Amino acid sequence: MANRTAIAAKTVELLNAMRAARPLVHNIANYVSMDIAANALLAIGASPAMVHAREEVAEFVAIAGALVINIGTLSASWVDSMKLAAEAAGRNAKPWVLDPVGAGATRLRTDTVKALLPHRPSIIRGNASEIMAVAGGAGAAPKGVDSANTTEEALAFAVSLAKHQRCTVIATGAVDIVTDGERVVKLANGSPVMAKVTALGCALSAVTGAFAAICPDPFDASVAAVGVYGIAGELAAAATTRPGSYRVAFLDMLETVGPENVTASLKVTD
Amino acid sequence: MANRTAIAAKTVELLNAMRAARPLVHNIANYVSMDIAANALLAIGASPAMVHAREEVAEFVAIAGALVINIGTLSASWVDSMKLAAEAAGRNAKPWVLDPVGAGATRLRTDTVKALLPHRPSIIRGNASEIMAVAGGAGAAPKGVDSANTTEEALAFAVSLAKHQRCTVIATGAVDIVTDGERVVKLANGSPVMAKVTALGCALSAVTGAFAAICPDPFDASVAAVGVYGIAGELAAAATTRPGSYRVAFLDMLETVGPENVTASLKVTD
Amino acid sequence: MANRTAIAAKTVELLNAMRAARPLVHNIANYVSMDIAANALLAIGASPAMVHAREEVAEFVAIAGALVINIGTLSASWVDSMKLAAEAAGRNAKPWVLDPVGAGATRLRTDTVKALLPHRPSIIRGNASEIMAVAGGAGAAPKGVDSANTTEEALAFAVSLAKHQRCTVIATGAVDIVTDGERVVKLANGSPVMAKVTALGCALSAVTGAFAAICPDPFDASVAAVGVYGIAGELAAAATTRPGSYRVAFLDMLETVGPENVTASLKVTD
Repeated sequence: MANRTAIAAKTVELLNAMRAARPLVHNIANYVSMDIAANALLAIGASPAMVHAREEVAEFVAIAGALVINIGTLSASWVDSMKLAAEAAGRNAKPWVLDPVGAGATRLRTDTVKALLPHRPSIIRGNASEIMAVAGGAGAAPKGVDSANTTEEALAFAVSLAKHQRCTVIATGAVDIVTDGERVVKLANGSPVMAKVTALGCALSAVTGAFAAICPDPFDASVAAVGVYGIAGELAAAATTRPGSYRVAFLDMLETVGPENVTASLKVTD
Repeated sequence: MANRTAIAAKTVELLNAMRAARPLVHNIANYVSMDIAANALLAIGASPAMVHAREEVAEFVAIAGALVINIGTLSASWVDSMKLAAEAAGRNAKPWVLDPVGAGATRLRTDTVKALLPHRPSIIRGNASEIMAVAGGAGAAPKGVDSANTTEEALAFAVSLAKHQRCTVIATGAVDIVTDGERVVKLANGSPVMAKVTALGCALSAVTGAFAAICPDPFDASVAAVGVYGIAGELAAAATTRPGSYRVAFLDMLETVGPENVTASLKVTD
Repeated sequence: MANRTAIAAKTVELLNAMRAARPLVHNIANYVSMDIAANALLAIGASPAMVHAREEVAEFVAIAGALVINIGTLSASWVDSMKLAAEAAGRNAKPWVLDPVGAGATRLRTDTVKALLPHRPSIIRGNASEIMAVAGGAGAAPKGVDSANTTEEALAFAVSLAKHQRCTVIATGAVDIVTDGERVVKLANGSPVMAKVTALGCALSAVTGAFAAICPDPFDASVAAVGVYGIAGELAAAATTRPGSYRVAFLDMLETVGPENVTASLKVTD
């Protein structure tokens, strides 16, 4: 387990660097999350763009700081664009984040994730069951795991997937896990109220892209994004727990959250 | 006219049952309403999913508790998916709600509704003019009705459409009508402020899906959904009447509204 | 420079006329802006519709008061619909507004704008760099301008584009420029906080359509839209500067802003 002080210091450094750079984050997002993801990126200090046409995604990836692909509301033509964009990210050495929404729920989702993984995402962010589904589909399910119910199981899948893909994996839940297959950090910030607002997981993937854009190590970028986001979630939950009000407060806190909050509140757990 | 006390009691029962079950509601929604519909479903206690690809809609209907099809922002490929999903709902005996947004305004909308009606929606929810257009297009316009202007006329169309389609019809307005062709309930909850926020009608269709998912009688489910939704609208209007603030307050109240509000405030009218 | 008193009086007249008429504004919007654009139109007193299918756009333009085409989230099939709608606007003598989001950033955007310009938009609204890119692509770049960095340069491009296209051009920024190639009005309302909320520029284009729907002179309509919108932005910034809260306050103020605010606060500058 890495040192809490060192993690907090790195997170503060990356938050400051990201806000100074104001990176352009190219999202191929889902229809539900576009509004909140764009607003979350603006609030935390990055610059969002939502671009999905096959005729322009490759061109746009080249001018963006990072790419975020979210498979929430798929259709065949969007899958084509996702592949082209992921390929362009590789060609241009841009970091990219995969959010495998609903992986495992339908064949289309499983197949889309399979088609995207060879393009080597820098970071994969999902909830526990999505990460387990992606790991299983990639042939990276750890041995001897039969049930999908515990955090420890999600952890094993996340580590195995990260090793297999040589990427960073974020599995979010009550405790958020970040791993690159070697290192593991568990963060316990956030609030159950976050689940009352749609697409806050998708918006975290977008925010992770903002940190990846300015940090050569996707693992450090992921830890920083998850930590800052969770602390903003806690600050908002201290203000309100109602779903409509919470969405407003959360965006406010993404702007407000600062180095002093990270230093005081980052919860690294075992 | 059914008994107000019995209707309120049934509505309380269904609200409690829906929140206990937290049904998965599969929406083929329009682009404008996706965010508010998903957040409304979360706020009232259900679980939303927005899935529209023709490759996966049938598969997803099978795992959902109910399907909601909204034709607000149509295109040809989405119409294909709507037909496949509606057909799958029939095959899997899942209740489904049709929201015929803008029916009658263009040929594409009229044709799309005509193509969907044979797949037997459990519930059709629209405003008065949409319901009249659907009834007319289905050959279910009542005789002797020449004008589209009075509530009584919308009522006659709604009853005729419900009989013809053997489904439940909800016509929303200052007074909301729910009918299965035999029974008619008129509810007078809600607030004019609701019209200041886009897609609150679409979000009601989504919420109706949540009640239909846990109640074998689409008529009872519809009365409960309309009643609870309207009471939340009143509670929010007591807090604010400004459009931005109202949207926030309304989502808050969808979570807050409870059995005691239904018992105290449900307005069944003649 | 036109007289401030006369401009304020005209703006008040058009604001009252627009609210009395409640025009139907047909938007082919981008996915990110649909929610906020529809809610902004409702809040200011117009009636929004989002309709993009190639099978129905021409039919819908004929019943709308104005058309707004926003190229924010393009794809090939949407470009087809945009052309059909723009053509129908010409045929039906309906005013239409072009929002060339990201013009110059990719070839698809440049090509789409080029394909739409011959359909003669009544108004083109963009930020300074978008207007400069559109002017350049249309062969309307003023001579001797090499840099894209100053307001005066954007002004020259805007005037040249307006003359070349015989339309009104709005270039928004810290100072907003409205020109029809002969007349120029510079408005200094608004707030830097507006940039914290995604798609507020897109929503201004939609609101401009509402004014164009009820005013035969696109130049006057544009000045009124920009002025009222900017004043609402200031009123909201007086209430809050946080991004989530600001979005809510801004929609509230779009409803609240009235003739007395225009008379008191419209800032016409040199």
